[in-house]
Amino acid sequence: MKKLEEKILKDGKILPGGVLKVGNFLNQQIDTPFMKEMGEEIAEMFKDTGATKILTIEASGIPIAVSAGFAMNLPVVYAKKNKTSNISGDCYSTMVHSFTHGNNNNVIVGKEYISSDDKVLIVDDFLAHGSALVGLIEICEQAGAEVLGCVAAIEKGFQMGGDKLREKGYRVESLAIIEEMTDTEIYFREQ
Amino acid sequence: MKKLEEKILKDGKILPGGVLKVGNFLNQQIDTPFMKEMGEEIAEMFKDTGATKILTIEASGIPIAVSAGFAMNLPVVYAKKNKTSNISGDCYSTMVHSFTHGNNNNVIVGKEYISSDDKVLIVDDFLAHGSALVGLIEICEQAGAEVLGCVAAIEKGFQMGGDKLREKGYRVESLAIIEEMTDTEIYFREQ
Repeated sequence: MKKLEEKILKDGKILPGGVLKVGNFLNQQIDTPFMKEMGEEIAEMFKDTGATKILTIEASGIPIAVSAGFAMNLPVVYAKKNKTSNISGDCYSTMVHSFTHGNNNNVIVGKEYISSDDKVLIVDDFLAHGSALVGLIEICEQAGAEVLGCVAAIEKGFQMGGDKLREKGYRVESLAIIEEMTDTEIYFREQ
Repeated sequence: MKKLEEKILKDGKILPGGVLKVGNFLNQQIDTPFMKEMGEEIAEMFKDTGATKILTIEASGIPIAVSAGFAMNLPVVYAKKNKTSNISGDCYSTMVHSFTHGNNNNVIVGKEYISSDDKVLIVDDFLAHGSALVGLIEICEQAGAEVLGCVAAIEKGFQMGGDKLREKGYRVESLAIIEEMTDTEIYFREQ
């Protein structure tokens, strides 16, 4: 998505440790007209796939998942992060490591919200090492639901999470893929 | 909003401790067509007020804030919850007590996202004791921004948070106000 690449170049800030800050339009602050366009782009990618549900993870995945849900007219479910592993039996759960925060979160979804009848589209804002997506795929597997594919707004291609999932046979789409990032420059993968 | 009241009666579950669970349409799972209608209702309430920004708090406030942002064509900012009080100088921050989780969260918003030029509409999913809204109002005050009003999808009128804010002169609107809730019955305030 050319417009997203341009927005990253214009508004993104590269912070120490390879962190890309896009807080003024994607997370913390949401540029709603542009978020609507991204949702429509996702809808276009996954039209005619028979998706029944969108799954994301709190908190920063919610805006783009809701936008895609609006465009596709699909219910959106978000997994919750939980520090404790003391989970009652009425939830699917898995452990997800956050490289950004350097901690582990137990990620949970109530069993009533995903079933074996569902064809799920997983949506998130960022895809780096892929641990959040792997966790959400695991939750779909626990539910016996079909994973149609995964979409991220911004993929950090050089952190390999997306390509590892593609090698496993999952359909993974990203609206922009950063192939390389230096302290001052960002290079995108041709799509 | 009559349709929200009907949805609460149909889909809401009353749990021990006065908790109203509406996870199948408002949080955890979002009924997107209905969420869109709630956003449009909020837009109608606050049209012609000159709002420049919507402020909410992660995570469950984000869907309804984004929906209102879509309907009003306004940027949405969400405050983050943080267990530590070790906040750098580039954030507004305040402490918010969660009655649901029985803990305190430091609530933060980057200074770049709200300014003294902003006229802010605060949006959240639930309004009970009002501690989250009070925290978000404090953040607006720190920024020197004007608070145009607060909107919640569901207000628990019997927990008084909304009425305390109204007494202080704030415009507080809720799409449905629960006046009384027993173990089996829900009664709404006439609006």
